[in-house]
Order: sequence, then structure tokens, then C-alpha cells
Amino acid sequence: MNKKVAIIGIGITPFGELWTRGYRDLITDAGTEAIIDSGIDGKDIEGLYIGSMSPGRFSGQEHIGALVADYSGLTGIYATRIEGACASGSLALREAYLAIKSGEMDVVVVGGVEKMTDVPTSSATVTLMGAGDQEWEAFKGATFPSLYAMMARRHMFEYGTTIEQISQVAVKSHENASRNPNAQFPFKVTIDQVMNSSMIADPLRLLHCSPLSDGAAAVVLASEAAAKELSRDPVWITASASATDTIALHDRVSLSRMDSTILAAEKVYKKAGVKPDDIDFAEVHDCFSIAEIMAIEGLGFCKLGEGGRMAQEGELSLDGRIPTNTSGGLKGKGHPVGATGIAQAVEATLQLRGQADKRQIKDAERGLIHNVGGSGATTVIHILERN
Amino acid sequence: MNKKVAIIGIGITPFGELWTRGYRDLITDAGTEAIIDSGIDGKDIEGLYIGSMSPGRFSGQEHIGALVADYSGLTGIYATRIEGACASGSLALREAYLAIKSGEMDVVVVGGVEKMTDVPTSSATVTLMGAGDQEWEAFKGATFPSLYAMMARRHMFEYGTTIEQISQVAVKSHENASRNPNAQFPFKVTIDQVMNSSMIADPLRLLHCSPLSDGAAAVVLASEAAAKELSRDPVWITASASATDTIALHDRVSLSRMDSTILAAEKVYKKAGVKPDDIDFAEVHDCFSIAEIMAIEGLGFCKLGEGGRMAQEGELSLDGRIPTNTSGGLKGKGHPVGATGIAQAVEATLQLRGQADKRQIKDAERGLIHNVGGSGATTVIHILERN
Repeated sequence: MNKKVAIIGIGITPFGELWTRGYRDLITDAGTEAIIDSGIDGKDIEGLYIGSMSPGRFSGQEHIGALVADYSGLTGIYATRIEGACASGSLALREAYLAIKSGEMDVVVVGGVEKMTDVPTSSATVTLMGAGDQEWEAFKGATFPSLYAMMARRHMFEYGTTIEQISQVAVKSHENASRNPNAQFPFKVTIDQVMNSSMIADPLRLLHCSPLSDGAAAVVLASEAAAKELSRDPVWITASASATDTIALHDRVSLSRMDSTILAAEKVYKKAGVKPDDIDFAEVHDCFSIAEIMAIEGLGFCKLGEGGRMAQEGELSLDGRIPTNTSGGLKGKGHPVGATGIAQAVEATLQLRGQADKRQIKDAERGLIHNVGGSGATTVIHILERN
Repeated sequence: MNKKVAIIGIGITPFGELWTRGYRDLITDAGTEAIIDSGIDGKDIEGLYIGSMSPGRFSGQEHIGALVADYSGLTGIYATRIEGACASGSLALREAYLAIKSGEMDVVVVGGVEKMTDVPTSSATVTLMGAGDQEWEAFKGATFPSLYAMMARRHMFEYGTTIEQISQVAVKSHENASRNPNAQFPFKVTIDQVMNSSMIADPLRLLHCSPLSDGAAAVVLASEAAAKELSRDPVWITASASATDTIALHDRVSLSRMDSTILAAEKVYKKAGVKPDDIDFAEVHDCFSIAEIMAIEGLGFCKLGEGGRMAQEGELSLDGRIPTNTSGGLKGKGHPVGATGIAQAVEATLQLRGQADKRQIKDAERGLIHNVGGSGATTVIHILERN
């Protein structure tokens, strides 16, 4: 068995509406960059895991593992696709992590990719509802903005969370995105701009919502022995955990918290032997600004109901107590759904290596990445450490 | 690390055009049967792996892991979907096997499911081409019958394989299916019926082609320690291997053999420490009858080019040298694509337990299951043993 698993290479494309790059271009761009960054040779690679939510509906293409192996010049190796809606990337990371721990593989490439802008926006919205309950939510007309709007309303009702607090999350995300050259929206927004943007699903406005995006990210994972042989600068995955909740929102115990996150967080802290206070920074799943507030509460960075206050008081900012989404998050960086979990791993690795440039935080020793599928039916969490 | 992995429970639905059972009904039917068969309690289950190719396009539903966990009453556990076209089932089995070997889980349920008949046949054909190369095959009008027809023609040209030999595979599959109450086509066909059925893609006729099907299958996997505690009748997975080839047929070195099968077979025999002669029976991927011939050649049951002769001489029949597809295979039993790999594991377990009823073979000690994605871009092979 391999006890430890390292990230030894990272790659990421710009995120955005990328008319000149197709699905297979994006993932091979990111994968090639990760392999070059790792310094390994193609023949060292034993497995390929690709997280992607809906390539069948966005691009007419399934059989993604073999496709990417082929177009990367890795024909012959083991390859598979992993899907869990917007958590597909982190699920792929987790499966690759388990494969290395099993002892059957030592060097594995994990990619995440989505090409969402080749279809009309209405069609993309329908496709994304495949992450919810098709029979009990989608058929009734629910969309993800409306589902998260209900969570926001309930959070505001139970805890007195204000729309100003929710908006402050978006302001912070855009501030960070303005320092990330790969971000889809690399510019700042004011709280007035957020609170006066177009209404999407009351109380959520356009600037509370992550966009449709094209993009890909990749990491190279290695066993401890392989990492020590191949890498000068490994970052360690010290724990991986995941949990599920009901797929439909109406079946949940509570709309104002995310139980899959709470359950996965309990597991991941126990596995890593750390507490929320030991985390230096986090990339969390802010598909809507309210989701970031529910994430930091579920992760134990504050008590339930205090997330809005944390955002308002700047505790989540680059120089705050627990900087979140230094990359710009899904809101500012973009959200090509299958790529998001891997992009989080790339950002955390940059921070831990001290390579995050204008958005580098101080003393980054331990980061957490948090990726959600749908309205919270899946949460996947990893903890990454410098040593 | 867990060194050994056992199958301790199996479940399968009838395969066919099942108008009264939806996607989630099928997988929960099979999963419930597997859990009851294993004798375990729901609380023992730590993970759920679902193989499914195109639920997004067939049923508008992605996020399959969480969906099935929810509808099975297993909310909270780790769940993910695995996709690799028609090899999705075996890839899910392999990922679950690796998860147990990693030591992170001891009891895992693996399911495979597809609901293909809720869309028009033409739409299903387009969806299935998602298993091929969308840009270089599908856009040019290729379908899977046409791709396999080219392989058949080349095999006939290179080796003198005859259409009678190819047809004999279908006759044998239907003979076996007539003994399987869950089969979609539980009846015999004559070689004349096969050779005079409607032409689909020359030289392949209707009765050389597997059908569109609805269905699901599930197995419960356990670590050695858990199996010894929970099961009286475990069957052991002694090796798992998988390999890829180019996704498009025109990039292959040869059209008359399946290199992903040859490569995966080399690996799996090495891992299990056995030779082709040590295999008592096999379930192989006969999406088209020519594919079964290429499978048995790639698996080393005969030399390249001798598969047609093996079929003609009855060596693949229930009382032959290496009985293949005792279940009826994809041709006779049906081919709900995501379910197929798991259905193969169910059939092999029945044979090894001595529970295969009218299709039971003698002295079944070691079986092989062989699952292919697309035209051979993915092959996954497992070896199962009684002791």
C-alpha cells in the first residue's frame, strides 16, 4: 500500500468563453502543462482519471477516459471518467488518490474539463439540471439559481443573514479574480454593482451567480516513493473524504445548511488529524454567493449562521483569518463544472508552493479544497499540505 | 491495505424493453437484491459505485452516484458514477476493487444501469456514437454496426473467417439465453435464421447485433476480513486490469484484432498468475458477433484468426472447451450498456457458486469477464475464482 499521495505537477487553462478551443483541446492543454510542470516522462504515467459532468450533452461525446488518453498520446494506459455533477473533478481526484493508495499505480494524471458554451444558454441550464432530481425538481421547472435562492431565503430567515453580507462574498471573489490572469472575470466589482445587478432568482442577482464556462485543469499525482524520486516540490494530499445527501432539496432536514459538507468535513478532519482552526486557506464551492457562506459554516470555520458576518468583516479576504477562494472562486474565476475541483487543487498547490503571485497568502502550510455537486447531494473535501 | 476483494452478493433485473421500470427503479431493484443476497445490513455499506454510460442523454439525469444513494436509502455514504461507454460497468467494478484495496473502505456496492428505450431508436443510435470519436467518426456518419462491420470484413479478408462462423456465435448465444430467465431474448435461433435476418451493415445482419435494452445489475464487494465475517459464500476477484486504444477505428494498427484486449489480457493474467488455459469459462463482450471472435482471440483462448473455427466447432458452447457467454451474452441476454460489465460479474458468480441452473457448466473454478467500450478503445478484464 502507498500511504501518502503527492501532487507533483499542475496545469490549468484560462477559463471563459473560449471559442477557439474545443473539449479535447482544453483537456490536453491542461494535461500537457501538468506533465511538463511535474517533469515526468509520459511513460511514467499509469492511469488517467477525468472528471467531467455532461460532455454527452454539451459536446455529443462520452467515453472520455479513452478519448483523452488517445489525444494526449497516452494510448494503452488505464483511463476512466468520473462523474458527480459539479463535484466530478474532486471525485476524479479522490478516485485517483484511492488508486495510488491501493498500490496498483504510482503515477496518475487527473484532469477535469467542461466545454459549456457551444450550446445555447437555455440548453446549458437544462443540462445543468441533470445535477438535480430530474423527476422531482427539473420536471417542475426548478433551476439551480432557484434552488440556491430558496436556500438563501431560508438562511436569511433563520439567521438574519443580509443581502449585503451575501454580496460581500462576490465582491471579495472578484477582488481575488482581478489578481488571477486565468480568471473568466479578472476585474473588481463594488457592492453596489452586485446589489443592483439583474435579478435572477430573488434574492440572488447576476453577480451572485457563477457563469457558464469552458476550461480544464489537471494535476499529476504520485505515490510517496515516486514523488521522492521524481519531484523536487511535492504537495501532499493528507486526507480525502466525501459524503452524500438527498439529491432533491425538498427531502433535506434543513435548507439553511449543507449536511453533506458537514459530514464530509467531520471525516476529513478526523483522517488528517486536524481541526478547522488548523486550516490556513480554503477553496470552497461558491456556485452562488450563498453557497460560500454555507460552505464555511459547514466546514466549521465559524458556527452555523455566522458565515455572513465573517464575509462582512473581511475574515475571508486575502489578509483575513481564513482566506477563501484566493483564485476568485467559481464566481470570479469561472465554473467549467467538471474542471472546478481540479482547478481548486491547482490553486491550493500554487499557494502551498508560494507561486500564487499577486494573490499569494502568507505562511500557507495547509489548505482545504471543497467541491459540491448539485444543491449539495455530493460534497468532496481534500486537505493539502506543504510537508 | 486489503489484499483480497470478494463478491459477497449479486442482483440483476430482467433485461429488455421495460416500460414499467424507470432508471432509478432498475438500479434500486438490482441493488436491493444484491444487498439481500449478501446478507449484510445497509449500515455496513461505505461506498457506492455506479457504472452508466449516458443517463444524461437517455433520461436527462446526471449526478448518478448521489441519486442512487438517495433512492436506495443510503444517503450520506460515498457515491460516484464511473463512465467508459459500454465498459462503464466493469470500470465501476475496477474502481470499487481499487477502493477496497486502498484500505479506505471494506464494504462497497457496485451497480451498473442503463435505460435506453425511453428515446427513439435513432436517438439511441446517436447517443451510442458518443462512445466513438464524435469529431472523426460520428460527424462522418459512422455508427457502431458500421464500425464493427468493417472489423468483420477485415477479419474475413485476413483469416478467411466465414459468415457461417460469425453466425454460429449468435446461435450459441441464443441457445444459452434460452436457459436464462432474465434474458431479453430467451429463445433459440437457427443458423439459417441468423444468416437470413435483415441486413444492418454488410456483413452484419440483425441477429449478429446486440439490442437496445433497459436493465441493471449490482454486486456487493468486501475486503477479505469483511467477507470472512459477513459471507458464507464469497467469490474472489483475483485480478483486475484495463487498457485503452485509440478511440477512432482508423487510427488503429489493425482492424482485425483488439489491441486493448490483448494488452489488458497480458496484464490480468500476470496479476492473477494464470494462463488462458487455466480459465474455465468467460463472459466476453459480444456487442456484435464478430466482437466475440476478436475477444476470444485477444484473450488468448486461441491464436489470432482461429476464433471463427472455435465457434464453429462448438468449443465455446456450454459443454465446450471454454464456454463463453453462458448468460446469453450481450446478443441474447441484452445490452443495457452501463449494466453489462456488472451483469457479467453476476453471471460468473452464479457459475462459480454452482447456481447457474440450466446453464451451469461443470467444475467452474475460475472465470474471466471481459467488457469493452466503443469499438475497443477501452477493455476491462477481471478474473474471478471460487477459492
